[in-house]
Amino acid sequence: MSERLTLDALNAMEEAGFVAALDGIFEHAPWVAQAAYAGRPFATVTALHEGLMAAVRSRPVDEQVAFVSAHPDLAGKAARAGDIAPASVSEQAGLGLDRLSDEEFERFERLNAAYRTRFGFPFVVCVRRLTRDAVLDAFERRLANDRETELATAIAEIGHITRLRLVEKVDGPGMPHVAGRLSTHVLDTHAGRPAEHVRIELFEVGRSSRARLTEVFTNADGRPHGVLLSGGPLRAGTYELVFHIGDHFRAHGVELPEQPFLDMVPIRFGISNPEGHYHVPLVATPWSYSTYRGS
Amino acid sequence: MSERLTLDALNAMEEAGFVAALDGIFEHAPWVAQAAYAGRPFATVTALHEGLMAAVRSRPVDEQVAFVSAHPDLAGKAARAGDIAPASVSEQAGLGLDRLSDEEFERFERLNAAYRTRFGFPFVVCVRRLTRDAVLDAFERRLANDRETELATAIAEIGHITRLRLVEKVDGPGMPHVAGRLSTHVLDTHAGRPAEHVRIELFEVGRSSRARLTEVFTNADGRPHGVLLSGGPLRAGTYELVFHIGDHFRAHGVELPEQPFLDMVPIRFGISNPEGHYHVPLVATPWSYSTYRGS
Amino acid sequence: MSERLTLDALNAMEEAGFVAALDGIFEHAPWVAQAAYAGRPFATVTALHEGLMAAVRSRPVDEQVAFVSAHPDLAGKAARAGDIAPASVSEQAGLGLDRLSDEEFERFERLNAAYRTRFGFPFVVCVRRLTRDAVLDAFERRLANDRETELATAIAEIGHITRLRLVEKVDGPGMPHVAGRLSTHVLDTHAGRPAEHVRIELFEVGRSSRARLTEVFTNADGRPHGVLLSGGPLRAGTYELVFHIGDHFRAHGVELPEQPFLDMVPIRFGISNPEGHYHVPLVATPWSYSTYRGS
Amino acid sequence: MSERLTLDALNAMEEAGFVAALDGIFEHAPWVAQAAYAGRPFATVTALHEGLMAAVRSRPVDEQVAFVSAHPDLAGKAARAGDIAPASVSEQAGLGLDRLSDEEFERFERLNAAYRTRFGFPFVVCVRRLTRDAVLDAFERRLANDRETELATAIAEIGHITRLRLVEKVDGPGMPHVAGRLSTHVLDTHAGRPAEHVRIELFEVGRSSRARLTEVFTNADGRPHGVLLSGGPLRAGTYELVFHIGDHFRAHGVELPEQPFLDMVPIRFGISNPEGHYHVPLVATPWSYSTYRGS
Repeated sequence: MSERLTLDALNAMEEAGFVAALDGIFEHAPWVAQAAYAGRPFATVTALHEGLMAAVRSRPVDEQVAFVSAHPDLAGKAARAGDIAPASVSEQAGLGLDRLSDEEFERFERLNAAYRTRFGFPFVVCVRRLTRDAVLDAFERRLANDRETELATAIAEIGHITRLRLVEKVDGPGMPHVAGRLSTHVLDTHAGRPAEHVRIELFEVGRSSRARLTEVFTNADGRPHGVLLSGGPLRAGTYELVFHIGDHFRAHGVELPEQPFLDMVPIRFGISNPEGHYHVPLVATPWSYSTYRGS
Repeated sequence: MSERLTLDALNAMEEAGFVAALDGIFEHAPWVAQAAYAGRPFATVTALHEGLMAAVRSRPVDEQVAFVSAHPDLAGKAARAGDIAPASVSEQAGLGLDRLSDEEFERFERLNAAYRTRFGFPFVVCVRRLTRDAVLDAFERRLANDRETELATAIAEIGHITRLRLVEKVDGPGMPHVAGRLSTHVLDTHAGRPAEHVRIELFEVGRSSRARLTEVFTNADGRPHGVLLSGGPLRAGTYELVFHIGDHFRAHGVELPEQPFLDMVPIRFGISNPEGHYHVPLVATPWSYSTYRGS
Repeated sequence: MSERLTLDALNAMEEAGFVAALDGIFEHAPWVAQAAYAGRPFATVTALHEGLMAAVRSRPVDEQVAFVSAHPDLAGKAARAGDIAPASVSEQAGLGLDRLSDEEFERFERLNAAYRTRFGFPFVVCVRRLTRDAVLDAFERRLANDRETELATAIAEIGHITRLRLVEKVDGPGMPHVAGRLSTHVLDTHAGRPAEHVRIELFEVGRSSRARLTEVFTNADGRPHGVLLSGGPLRAGTYELVFHIGDHFRAHGVELPEQPFLDMVPIRFGISNPEGHYHVPLVATPWSYSTYRGS
Repeated sequence: MSERLTLDALNAMEEAGFVAALDGIFEHAPWVAQAAYAGRPFATVTALHEGLMAAVRSRPVDEQVAFVSAHPDLAGKAARAGDIAPASVSEQAGLGLDRLSDEEFERFERLNAAYRTRFGFPFVVCVRRLTRDAVLDAFERRLANDRETELATAIAEIGHITRLRLVEKVDGPGMPHVAGRLSTHVLDTHAGRPAEHVRIELFEVGRSSRARLTEVFTNADGRPHGVLLSGGPLRAGTYELVFHIGDHFRAHGVELPEQPFLDMVPIRFGISNPEGHYHVPLVATPWSYSTYRGS
């Protein structure tokens, strides 16, 4: 990230340099940067991205289809064989799409095939904004769209993909808002103060399994020392925070039954907006708790 | 249960009949009923049980040890081979102790052996008051007792076992309190009324797995149509209620994100008192919920 | 109430007896009972009341106006002078309308005059279903109605008034539902059990003052020993429950600051449905509380 | 505050200048500054204050009594007549002690007289840290102390008084912590977001009346635009926040009964630590709410 180009430098470039500088953001489509070049100078990085997307959206349908078609299948043969843009490779790997079981690989292949048959272009989704289960949900849901809606959806997803690539290449005023945040807070209303040193585990909850993403401990203000989820978009999907609240009360000398009423408190919640802020606090006693989407 | 003896009838019996009538409650120990016979007439079934247990507790230590030793190993060879009192067979089966995997069977065997070596009598526990995991916890915890404490503990467990057997055989005034109860209630504070038709699943949560015990739906007052747990002692252990609250709000036309913030809400809680009443309500909106040990 | 007529007896009466038996329910209007007589036998007391009201509603507008006009002004000269039906006297007295200050009396006079000028008939309201402030609110709100709506509203209020009178005179199957109920429950989630011996005061909250209606203490289940409000319709209006929760925690040895964070907890709420059940619980620790409309 | 002396400047002064600079902090007692002078240089303003107080505490009891006796009676004749240190005048005025009714004035006189008779020195309290009612409570409570405890209490109060005066005169590293803070937050869990534009009133609740201190509105994050209480110590006492939550839900199109269940929600709470942070949020739907001491 330290060697990002400045927006000023980009605005000052000749067309060839401009197109070269943005290479890799839109896959196999230097014409996007060429068309957007006329819109210089861009006042903000957000305006630059909008200019690029406007160039895509102004093309006739058949050219848009060709543009979408230049993207690799999700978890497809191409992705396994390596014949895709380097940025795509690492994005798909982040979701574990390069480590699918044979069964899962076949499921993706079947969905890809059904999708191509129906729409005539590959399924494109910004995988950095979804959990693996949410990708499958979106795949099935979008198969029910009509072609016009689906083409617009695919291009909107390319908008998400390229926005994320752009902010890694270009720095300047008016950066697009691409980062979400998950935060929490533990309040001990038995003692009337923040709960310190509480162990909190975060899980991604899938249809058939759940994966532990991280573990944090609360500080004196009842907030995590480290970060739960941040630094980029959150993946839309289902999560579970598990608060080891029984240990907390035991450590503070509260008399509890051998089998405490509350020990590990799970809070399962969904994230739908990858760029949103999700504050999910726990307000607890040994005998009660509440949570809510806070701010 | 319909052919239970009345306490009056029992109080009116000759000693031989009295002892015969109570046969099977204290395993291999007709002397308990014989010793208690002098205490007739018993005003309540509770007093009868206390009279029987007092007969046990008044014996010298070596006789108490012999008495405890007449009980089968938990999940032991005898239990498999069938050489135990019929009541023991069905009680142990209720916990699945007759269907252990080889590994689990070996673990029980190891614990049984360690216990016998340490105390010189078999491990006795009232299995109808504990989940399988809680039995293992108790096993390990009790191995750390001194012999005097442990002998008293074993006899107290025999008290629990025989109390449950007694209430199935004898009817009359002052029945011992042997039944616990788990109840719930779902309140929709988005709409300001009880939540109807909410699906609720109940799980027993073990160390390595969880088993679904039942599923109920709420009625117009937000309470389960059927019963969650009742009819006898609850098994001390860890449980999870899962409330399908997302479906409820969706069915009532509340606009929710594709990935709702709250969908299936799990509430994990411990039961420590098998004869207690556990009321575990859910007070929820699409964006918040609270629970507590109610009454 | 003990000498109520049975519905059976009423159904068996000659017309003259039937009309005489219902005298005083509809003020100065024996024709209502005469007209309803044809509908006998009534299967339920509710059906009887509906038959009486149908007789009113089937009359032409000018007769309905004459019928409404036979009712006394609210808190008006007639009410002071005693020239109204005895049932009206005690109903208006229940709200303190016979004990108004000169200023309040003038305000009612002004509203009565404006109302009569606008509609040509007196303001009729079932005073047993409203607090004094709510009567004034309704008075002002209804002054904005058109005449047709307001005539129907006045007759609906006469429906409420006569329903209450009827259930005091006639007993039988299918009694109309005329009673509301206010209940509460105090749960101590610091200790994990119902809060016993908590003092609770109930106030009616008016625009300029508040009046204490009752005081109760909780029992071992955290519910009031006595009754908060019941026995008839609740008065729609604003109320406040004040829970002396600081005393409760202090009495149980919880260490509190000299000035406890929570001491007397007020919960202010509105009742809009006089025949509804309002359950307003308090779930509290020394540092937090929640309430909700329960069931 | 802009012309405060720096601690460095103070540390560099000759004794006469040092004593003159601190004049007015300890009433009629230049010897305190003289005695503390030897402790220079002070590393922090807190250390300076501790040095001054140590000088007081090291004196024999009779000198301490004489020192305390130099303070005016609270709300006493001297205070009315103007014969007290200027700082005392404005501090007592802040609490309205210069505007007492005759009855209240007599009550203070009576307490002052009883106190002087019992202890032989005047009642001293840091009035900027208490509400008027809390001053009366403290007066009565302290009358029950033994003389040694009470002398120490009076000197501790002089510590609070002089700390507040010192931070207004001297600036430098390690300022004493003298400011408390009251904050709030309104969360709408019906809509799942912070509640904007909610009107919140803050009252000081006295035994016989309550006074409105301020009114604020929430911003887009559900927090007050302005400040509730801050800028100095909070006054220990009882307060009430009133949230106009009915208006909020009505403004957002939520269908409510004519008499909403929740309209103006009062939260009454006590402040015991004038230098503490009190966060008192409201988490509400039209049918439920909760609050807690947050952080």
